[in-house]
Order: sequence, then C-alpha cells, then structure tokens
Amino acid sequence: MTCRKQYVVARPAYCEDSFAEEHEKFSRLHKTMLDHVKDYLTCDKKRMKNVALSLLPVVGWMRTYRIREWMLGDVVSGVSTGLVAIMQGLAFSLLASLPPSYGLYTAFFPALAYFFLGTSRHISVGSFPVLSLMVGAVVTRLVPENAPPANITDFEGLTQDHQRVLVASSVTFLMGIFQLAMGVLRVGFVVVYLSDTLVSGFTTAAAVHILVSQLKFVLGLNVPGISGPLSIIYTLEKIFGQMASSNVCDVVMSSVIMVVVFIVKELSERYKAKLPVPIPVEVITTVVACSVSYGFNFEKTYEVEVVGQMISGYESPIAPSVEVFQESAMEAFPIAIVGFAVAFSVAKVYSIKHDYTIDGNQELIAFGVSNIFGASFRSFAASTALSRTAVQESSGGKTQIAGLISAMMAMIVTVALGFLLEPLPKSVLGALVIVNLKGMLMQLREISHLWRRDKFECVVWVGTCLSAILLGLDLGLAVGLGVELLTVVFRTQFPRCSVLANIPGTDLYKDRKDYLHILEPKGVKIFRIPSPIFFANIEFFRDKLLEAVGFNPLRILRKRNKALKKMKNLFEKQGDTMMEENMDMFSKDPKGFPFHVDWNAELPANISVPKVGLHSLILDFSAVSFLDISALKGLKMALKEFIRVDVDVYIASCDACILDKLKSCTFFDDDVHTSMFYPTIHDAMLHVFNKHNTETRTKWVVSKKQNKTKQNKDTTLL
Amino acid sequence: MTCRKQYVVARPAYCEDSFAEEHEKFSRLHKTMLDHVKDYLTCDKKRMKNVALSLLPVVGWMRTYRIREWMLGDVVSGVSTGLVAIMQGLAFSLLASLPPSYGLYTAFFPALAYFFLGTSRHISVGSFPVLSLMVGAVVTRLVPENAPPANITDFEGLTQDHQRVLVASSVTFLMGIFQLAMGVLRVGFVVVYLSDTLVSGFTTAAAVHILVSQLKFVLGLNVPGISGPLSIIYTLEKIFGQMASSNVCDVVMSSVIMVVVFIVKELSERYKAKLPVPIPVEVITTVVACSVSYGFNFEKTYEVEVVGQMISGYESPIAPSVEVFQESAMEAFPIAIVGFAVAFSVAKVYSIKHDYTIDGNQELIAFGVSNIFGASFRSFAASTALSRTAVQESSGGKTQIAGLISAMMAMIVTVALGFLLEPLPKSVLGALVIVNLKGMLMQLREISHLWRRDKFECVVWVGTCLSAILLGLDLGLAVGLGVELLTVVFRTQFPRCSVLANIPGTDLYKDRKDYLHILEPKGVKIFRIPSPIFFANIEFFRDKLLEAVGFNPLRILRKRNKALKKMKNLFEKQGDTMMEENMDMFSKDPKGFPFHVDWNAELPANISVPKVGLHSLILDFSAVSFLDISALKGLKMALKEFIRVDVDVYIASCDACILDKLKSCTFFDDDVHTSMFYPTIHDAMLHVFNKHNTETRTKWVVSKKQNKTKQNKDTTLL
Repeated sequence: MTCRKQYVVARPAYCEDSFAEEHEKFSRLHKTMLDHVKDYLTCDKKRMKNVALSLLPVVGWMRTYRIREWMLGDVVSGVSTGLVAIMQGLAFSLLASLPPSYGLYTAFFPALAYFFLGTSRHISVGSFPVLSLMVGAVVTRLVPENAPPANITDFEGLTQDHQRVLVASSVTFLMGIFQLAMGVLRVGFVVVYLSDTLVSGFTTAAAVHILVSQLKFVLGLNVPGISGPLSIIYTLEKIFGQMASSNVCDVVMSSVIMVVVFIVKELSERYKAKLPVPIPVEVITTVVACSVSYGFNFEKTYEVEVVGQMISGYESPIAPSVEVFQESAMEAFPIAIVGFAVAFSVAKVYSIKHDYTIDGNQELIAFGVSNIFGASFRSFAASTALSRTAVQESSGGKTQIAGLISAMMAMIVTVALGFLLEPLPKSVLGALVIVNLKGMLMQLREISHLWRRDKFECVVWVGTCLSAILLGLDLGLAVGLGVELLTVVFRTQFPRCSVLANIPGTDLYKDRKDYLHILEPKGVKIFRIPSPIFFANIEFFRDKLLEAVGFNPLRILRKRNKALKKMKNLFEKQGDTMMEENMDMFSKDPKGFPFHVDWNAELPANISVPKVGLHSLILDFSAVSFLDISALKGLKMALKEFIRVDVDVYIASCDACILDKLKSCTFFDDDVHTSMFYPTIHDAMLHVFNKHNTETRTKWVVSKKQNKTKQNKDTTLL
Repeated sequence: MTCRKQYVVARPAYCEDSFAEEHEKFSRLHKTMLDHVKDYLTCDKKRMKNVALSLLPVVGWMRTYRIREWMLGDVVSGVSTGLVAIMQGLAFSLLASLPPSYGLYTAFFPALAYFFLGTSRHISVGSFPVLSLMVGAVVTRLVPENAPPANITDFEGLTQDHQRVLVASSVTFLMGIFQLAMGVLRVGFVVVYLSDTLVSGFTTAAAVHILVSQLKFVLGLNVPGISGPLSIIYTLEKIFGQMASSNVCDVVMSSVIMVVVFIVKELSERYKAKLPVPIPVEVITTVVACSVSYGFNFEKTYEVEVVGQMISGYESPIAPSVEVFQESAMEAFPIAIVGFAVAFSVAKVYSIKHDYTIDGNQELIAFGVSNIFGASFRSFAASTALSRTAVQESSGGKTQIAGLISAMMAMIVTVALGFLLEPLPKSVLGALVIVNLKGMLMQLREISHLWRRDKFECVVWVGTCLSAILLGLDLGLAVGLGVELLTVVFRTQFPRCSVLANIPGTDLYKDRKDYLHILEPKGVKIFRIPSPIFFANIEFFRDKLLEAVGFNPLRILRKRNKALKKMKNLFEKQGDTMMEENMDMFSKDPKGFPFHVDWNAELPANISVPKVGLHSLILDFSAVSFLDISALKGLKMALKEFIRVDVDVYIASCDACILDKLKSCTFFDDDVHTSMFYPTIHDAMLHVFNKHNTETRTKWVVSKKQNKTKQNKDTTLL
C-alpha cells in the first residue's frame, strides 16, 4: 500500500492568537467596490480595440477562414441544415399559431444577424419549438381564435393573421431588447441558475405542451388555442370532447407518418455507424405527402387542412406595438431567458468539442440584435434547436458560413418555391413535430434516477415540470427557479450535525456514532457545525447543540441564581459555618451575592441544582463558509449562555475571513474573546487537557488557599 | 501564555481507504422517509394525552396558578393593558379603514380564544398596526371611498361601512384558516425565513405607510384610500394637492398632541428608573381631547371629523364571504404570516425572560382559531403589539388572566361607555398613531450599521423596505423574502477561493497570500473550495481552479494529442532512433498511437507543447458542506481533465456524508477512485512527497526498464 507512511508532527500547540503572534501576516489591501468600478471603467487603446473586436466576432474568424479546407464542408452542411430549417420553420410556426410562411422568415433574418455578431461557429440559429410555443401562448391570449382580440388600438384594420403576426413580432422585439440589455449590462451569468435538472424538467413540460398543441392538427380538429394557467387541461377537455368528429384522413395520414418516421429514425440511430449520412426521412415524408395531397386534392376531397397560400417574397418591415409590449412584458422576459439559455448551452457543448471560446455576454448581444432585426421583418422568436445544430455540425459545418447558406435556402423557398408547399396537410407537420418529441419526453426517466441520488433535485425536477405543465411555461419556469433556489437554502438549513470524538492514537476527530473504537474525553464535547450559519438555521443549531450537550445552560443558570438567593438567606442566618462546609470559593460582591460557587460540589441539603458534567465545549467550524448578522448575534448569545455556567467554549478551524468578520462586527467582548479560537480541534483539545489536568492536580490546594484568603477578606468586611 | 504547549503526533499517514481499513466503522442504519412517517403516525395513550394537553394549554397553567402570588399582578396589569388596548383599538381601526367600534371588538374576541389556546403567558392579543393597515389595503381596494365597490353579490343591500366590515372580517377569517392550517400541518418553522433584517426593513416600510395613511386625519382632509403598487405616491400626491384646504383646528390640535406626547414619552423614558409606573399620557390626552371637543362642540363649530356614533353592544355574528376569499387570498396569506411572525417573536422574548416554553405550532393554532372566532364576530386581524405587551408584562401580568381582564375592559367600553368616546376627533387618534411610530422609523439608522458590517444584509434591508413602500406591504414582503433567499445563494456562489501553502514546521496550511513565511512545494497546488458546490457555482470554481494552476488541462490535452499525431508520423518515418533519444516510455496501443510520452522531457524540435509544472493537485474540501448532482458531474469532469494530463488529484478533509454520496452516485470509475481521498491536507501532502521523492530517485531505473519491455513488445507486434 502506498499509504503506509508515518505522519509525525512536533510543533507548538497553537491558539489562533499565539499562531498570529508567531507567524507574521501580510496586511493585504482588499479592493473596495470603488476600485472594482474604476477598474471596470478604465479605458485605453488596446482595451478599446478588444472591445470593438469582441463586438463583431465575424472579423476575427473571417480573417483566419481556410477556404480550401472549410468551404466544402460549410456548403454541404448549409444545404442539409437548410432543408431541416425549412421543415422546422413550417412546423414550429404552427406552435406559434402563425401562418407557416413566417416560420421561413424566422429561418432567414435572425441567422443573418447572428452571422455577424455570434461567437459560436456551429449553432444553427432559427426557430426553437419551446420558444415558438411560448410566443404562441401570448398570440392566442391576445388574439384568440373564436373571440374578439384584446383591446389594442394597433390592431385596428388588421386581419386576424396580421394581428397575430404583430403580436408575435412585438413579443420577439421585446425579447430581443431584454437580451440585448442583459448582454450590455454583462449579466449573462444569470443562466447558471437554470441548472441541468431545472432545464430537463422544463423541457419535458414543454414537450407535453407541444404534444397537446399538435393533437388538434393530427386529429384534424378545430380547437381554439387556450392560454393561461391550467390551459392544458381545458384544451385536453375540448379535444376529447370533439374526438368523435376527427378527420379520418388526417388521423390515418399522421399515424402512418408517425410510425414510419419513428421506425426509420430508430433504425438509422441503431445503424448510425454504417450510414454515410442520416436518412432525411422528414424531407422525404414531406415531399411524398405534398405530392399525394396535391394528386388526390386532399383539401377539397377530404376537407384536410393544408398549409395553403404561402406568401411569396418578403413583406415590408413593421414597427412593434408598444401596447403589446405592455401586455406581454411578463411573458417576454422568460422567453428571452429560455431562448438564450438553450442557445448558450448548445453552443458551449460544441465550443468545448472544437476548442474555441464563446462569450456569454456577446451571445446575448448577438441574439438580442438577431431577434430585434428578425422581429422588424415579421419573424418570431429565434434561438437554436439542438437537432438542427447537430445536423449542421455533423454534416461538416465549420463556421457560420453554413448558417448563412441555410438561411439562403430558406430565402429561396420563400421567394420562389413556396407554392410547392401549399398542398402540404398541417397534420403532416403536426405528426413530424410529435415524433421528434421522443427525446424530450424520454427525460421522464430521470425522475427515478434523481430520486435515488438526490431527493432535493428530484423535487426540483418534478416541481418545475408539474408547474410548467399546469401553470404554463413562463410561470412554471419562475416557480421552478424558486423551488431550485429554495433547495439551496434547505440543504444548508437542516444539515446533519454530529458530535465528534478522537480516533485513539491520532489527531483526527470523527463522528462518534460512526466508529467502534473512539475516545471521548470526559467533560468535553466536540460539536461539528456542518454548514454555513445564517438566519434560517441558527436556531436549529442551537437546539441541536443543547441536545448534544444534554442540558440547557439558560435553565441551569436560572436555577443556580435561585439557589444563590436561597444560599444567601442561609448564609445570613448561619454565618461562616455553612460556607466552610459547602463551598470552595465564596465571597461577597457589592450586591451581597456570593461571588463564586462550585456547583458540582455538594450543596446544602435543601438546595438542588442540576449538575453540569461539561467543562469544555469545542465547536468545529471547518465547514462554516459564511455567517450572517443574525447568526452572529445568535451564536454570541449561545456562547455566552455556556460561558456563564462555567463551560469553556473553543472554536476550531474557523476560516480566516470569518474571524476577520467577527472582529469587525464587535463579536468580541469581556466574555467572548479571540483566545477561544484554535487552528485545529486537536490544538483546542490539547489546551483543554492541559488546563484540566493541572486543575485537577492542583485544584484542592489552590481552592483551599483562595478559600482562606476570601474568608479573611470577608471577615475584614463584616 | 496558556497556549505554549507542544503538539506532538506520530501516527501512520492515512488516506481515507487505509483509514477505513484500520478503523472499524459501524454500519449505521439511517432512517428512511417511511420510518419517519411511521414514527410520526405512531399513536399510544401517553402520546394522545400529551397531544390533548398541548392543544389546550390553559388546562396546564391553570392547574399551577398561584392565586395569592399572581392574582393582584394580573388584575393590575389587565386594567392598564385594557386602557392601552382600547386606545389602540380605536386608532388602528382607522388604519383598517373601519369604524372605530370594530377596533374594540378586536380587543375583545381574539383575546378570549387565545386565553384558552395560547402558550404564551405574556403577550397581549389584539390589533397590530401593520396588520390593520394590510387589512385596510384590501378593504379600500374592494370598497373604495368614492367609487362603486367591487362586483361581489354579498355586498348587495349593505351600507358602505357594512361592506367594509364584511371584507375585513372575511379577510381575517381566511387569515385564520391559513394560520390554523399551518399549525395543524406543523409548518410553523417557516417564520425562520423572516430574519431580523427582513422584519426590520419591513416594519420600517410599514411605519412609512402608516404615517402616510394618518396624514389625512391629522390634516383633516378627505382623501380616498388608494391601494395597489405605488399607491403611496398617489396618496401623497393627493394630500399635497389638497394641503391648502387642511382643517386648521385638526392641524393645531394634532400638532400640540404630538409635541406633548413626544416630550412626555422622552422624559419618562429618561427617568424610567425613578417613575413607579409609566405615565399614561395617551389616555390622559384622549380624555382631555374628548372633553375639549365635547365642550366646544368641535364637530359642529370647526367641522372636525370625530369618532361619532359608537355601536353600543355587539352585533350578530356574520358568515364570511367566499367571493371576498377569492378576491383576497393573495393578500390574506402574507397577513397570516406577518401576524404570526410578530406575535411569535414577541412571545419568544418573554418566554425566554420568564423561562417557559412556547410552541410555535400551537401558537399558530391559537391565532388561527382566535382570528376565525374574532372574524365571526366582525373583529379584524389580531396579533400582538409590542408596546401593549410591554405594558402587560411590566405592570405585573403573569398569565393570560391579565389578557382576559383587558378584554373585559374593552367589552365594558363597547357595552356601556362607548358614547363617551363619540366626540373624540379622529385627528387625535391619528396624532397618537404617528407619535408612536418613532421606534419603527428609528430603525432607518440600521442601514449604515448594516452597510459597514455586511453588504448583503444591507441589500436585504433596503430591498425589503423600498419594495414594501413602493409595491405595498404584501408584495413587498414577497420581494424581500426573494431577495433574502437569493443572498443565501449569492453568498455561497461567489466565495473567495484561495491557494494554500504550508506554514513551515507545522502541519497547518493557510492562504499563501496571507503569510510572509510560507512553504509551497514545487509541482503541488493546494486549492481550497470555501463553500458548498452546486449548480450555480461549479463553473465559477472550475474557472478559479484553472486560474490558480495557471493552465487549462483540456487545451494542454488537445495540444498533446496533436503533437502525438505529429510524433506518430515522425516515428513512422524515423523509426526507433527518435524514440530512444526523446522519450521515456513509448509503446503502441491498438490504434497505433504512442502509449505514453513524458511531456516535460525535451520534445523533437518542431513539436512544441506547453510544459505542465504541476504533478499534484490537492483540493481542500473541508468547507464543502454539500454537493448537488450538477456539481458532481462538473467536478468529475474537471478532475478527469487534470488526471488526463498526468496531474494526480487528491481531495482532503472531505465530509463522510459527501464521500458516501459520491459513492452512491457512481462518481468513481477507472480514472477517479476513492484512493484520492485523504483525511487531512497534510496526509495528502505526505503522500505526494513520498511518491515524488521516490520517483525522482528511482524514476530512471524504472522507466528504463519499462522502456525495454515495451520495446520488446513492440517488436513482437510489428
């Protein structure tokens, strides 16, 4: 075994005070907040250049573009990604409750802006199902299907579709403003709060919402979009109510497509290694469905709802509606956060794989500008879809040139080939969306994993998922975040406290319940505080500490005070005899109270005070990573209570920062002083042994002597 | 100095594995959740009796009531408290926007119920200004002064005052239900989240609201109550707009009263020790004001608004309105929380002072029932007021008998003496409320204290106070709570990481920046993680760690892989000569890659890979009080990166619970194993020294030998 060496140490035993005396400390100047602000605002030429470059990353990577090596890959990748982007654009526009043309817009405009501003070279910018659905929720809230639209003056004179486009582009514009603002304020770090667990629960809930929202298309029903809390239940209720009037053609067609696509996908997943490129089954299905629908005139013959009139070319830019901003601010913010978080996490994966850095704040700026730019041209919320980005990267894309080419593909369809898509049944799009939810829904399996490993995370997952399903995605995300942050508090709030004891023959101290052979010196308790101390757990620790020592010092003190009063009376009646018999030290202070009594000695017969078997209490502070002011007050009070019943309190392994803080917050006074701090438990223990061995040896002598002098003093006073 | 002893230890150097081998462990059975539930639901006779007794604390303390000792004190205290309760009842009913009679109801009914159910013997149950104001906000929202009331069918056929009473009693009823439910579910611990700092900021904001709400009375203006966010600003706007039309009589009278009461209070505070009882200046003022107002007929002569018609006797009970429940549920919950939190914190102070225990959950039940009972008889939200409780305790109250007597006083006034109060001007009540805000407003001084001691707490204080002022008390409380919980996350999220080094001649390791003389062995880094690790800070720690070691292992690994490819080519061209010249260990694995290269040795001229000066990394985990799954994954990834570039990673002082958790979460695999855990930094350091001293001594021999065998193997393969 490599571990079989000796650990031999011989050094002075320290307390923190003596350690500080012996080992000189630097007095470090810590930067004040002002210094940080100054640093931040300093500005020189080099810095300016860097800032300028970082704002336009395209300049950086274009200069090092290797045309011969990368161009082919980028073109191939751009074309394949473009096909997917077109398909997804059409399908996800259904989620956003918008005409399909606008999905193609979303595959074009945002990608253009991202080309110039983005730092990721691999993500495919465009529509993302969860975002589309979140936008769709606002759209159907403000412009419901079968009811008059919200009271917004900008809606006047617009058709329902145009009203919807106005809402979607306004929400997207606002989302872009939020992202841009966060990027400029450099607060991109907020996405760390969206932990993997939270995102997994949230996207699973989104998958459920997407599934439900597509049911009406695959069943060929006409169910109005409902938004707000519990909308999913009302929607399901309506769908089941109308189930009987489903369009058979739609149901058959979408079932066939779902089964075929599912099987092909499973097979190509299994034989991935053997296939040169993944089978573009969605594209094939779409083409086949289009032809069949056109050939048999599904729209007329079977009353199948088709994509219908595609807008050829681009419409003029529109200004966002401020009234919509006011109505949807609470929803645009979570959309902005989710959009960025997804894009950033996908971008990070590929940046690690291909070894380049991405800049979170610049990404926020890029997406902010992309969305503002896109919204001005009527496209809706853009982020990235994991599936599309995977296609772009795996088919050989090296830079955003591939993104640009995929945007061009979307443009070509918009400008010239849109009419080909007109006979495509919406149920086909719905079926394709549903079949792609498999991955997201499979995340449900995480519940049992999480439950076995970490109950708290399981609660976060289930809490986020359920609230996002029931309350809607935006509110659900907020609730999930709240639950997640609460778990951090909870974890530190009720930790497992333990009483430590010495492992014989070592300087190590472990939980006394864990080991068979363990040394617990009499009269000493070592209590470990295994987490930070703050307002929410100081009372908990106090209770646990009292439980560990087995008595409440406050109560002991009160009983002693009562006994003192009795003894005072006794003393006044009986005089010196009692004193000599019963007490070690005894003197009168100005109030006429006995000065000091050895409470563990035999007391007069009619006076009983619980005995305290403890003379020293050592608190292990090694895991206390911070202390707040409530904790500081509570701790001081608890320590004082022990000190007043003659228990010496020591604090071991306290972090230097915390000690500094205690000093600056006037924690120390006549009872509580810095000499109670020791660098290790063993140092404190050595001190305790030393003090109490000497004392037990010399106690009687000393106390007898003192007793005499006190008595003399008393007699002179009397 | 007492610290000057020697610290001498000689023991085997351990790693956690060898320690576990040598020191037998108990295999403790931890209780599962099911066990806890079973324990909780177990039911035997003794337990039943205890539960029954704890539900009716009056039985407990009545049995030990010492009539001779306590009765006199209770009666005197009851009478004095009663006078204060009547005054406050009248005044605080103005805050609740209700006719003053109902304030007297609130001083009677809840106290009756609390007498039977409460565990505190000293608090005076009745109206509390902050609660009254919160109820008032709901009242003026649903039944505004100059506008039609909310669309609630229960309002039909009621006068405005009766509508308001219905709203107030329904909100109080709902608040009681919330409190009762929390008590039954035993979740009284939630009040720990209301830290001192939060409560201080919140009550200061409440004082500002109270001040503004009373301005209209002391100025004699008729300003309708406004509720909702920013209402305080609109109210102030209206008041300043009407300032010119103030009632001079009201202004003069209230100014005089405020000055007189303020001075008398200051004086009696200063000469507290010399006064037998505090001067009942409020009562005297009220009597004088009543007489003067009656004598000069202020109501008619100066158009002063007076208390007016008091209801003589009690009205019949009313049922709460379910519609009001629906309208006010979001507001009743914070009212329930605040009401309980204030009462509980006051009760705790006196229970500690007088050494008896109070039971948080029973208190919740007591206040729940009190409020439900009170609401049925048209009284509004009850809790306790610190000032009134102070009177009850300081004037000799020993038990809730005093509370009962004070309730009787209120009853007498309601039934018989109410008419005496009818000429009392409302401005007098307003002035008395304002002058009593001094203590709450003085809390503003805390800002500078907090800023110097703890920036986070200062942010919580200011955040709570500002949001409670601007957004209203209920929403402000929620925002404050959110900010407070976020600070807990923040404190653990960006802690100060440090690189440790040895204090020469000891086994202690301290921040290397702090000490002048410090020993930092070459090739070893000791990195201290000073807080729990979780989703929000794992990336932060990774960055800090890379900063501390000075290189990014992932990048090194990638450069090495590139170099390996080059070397492979070189090797294939040049054959064995290069190998012998340049490398220590070298072999082919199945993919044809060289097996192992000493990257710090001289590499062929055209290949350059950054050298890594580090051979061992020790992570000090002593302050890591928990780890979540994201952190676990991130940590594992970070460790693996280091291990792959041949840096040995050791983890020191890891908590036993965390080690168990790592084991159960499949943290360990071929690269990451339990042998990297060491009980102390020094143990790990000894291991490192041992390993690298031996290695440098024996390295050449060993590596030469291996080199040979590998070469032989290679030749057989070729």
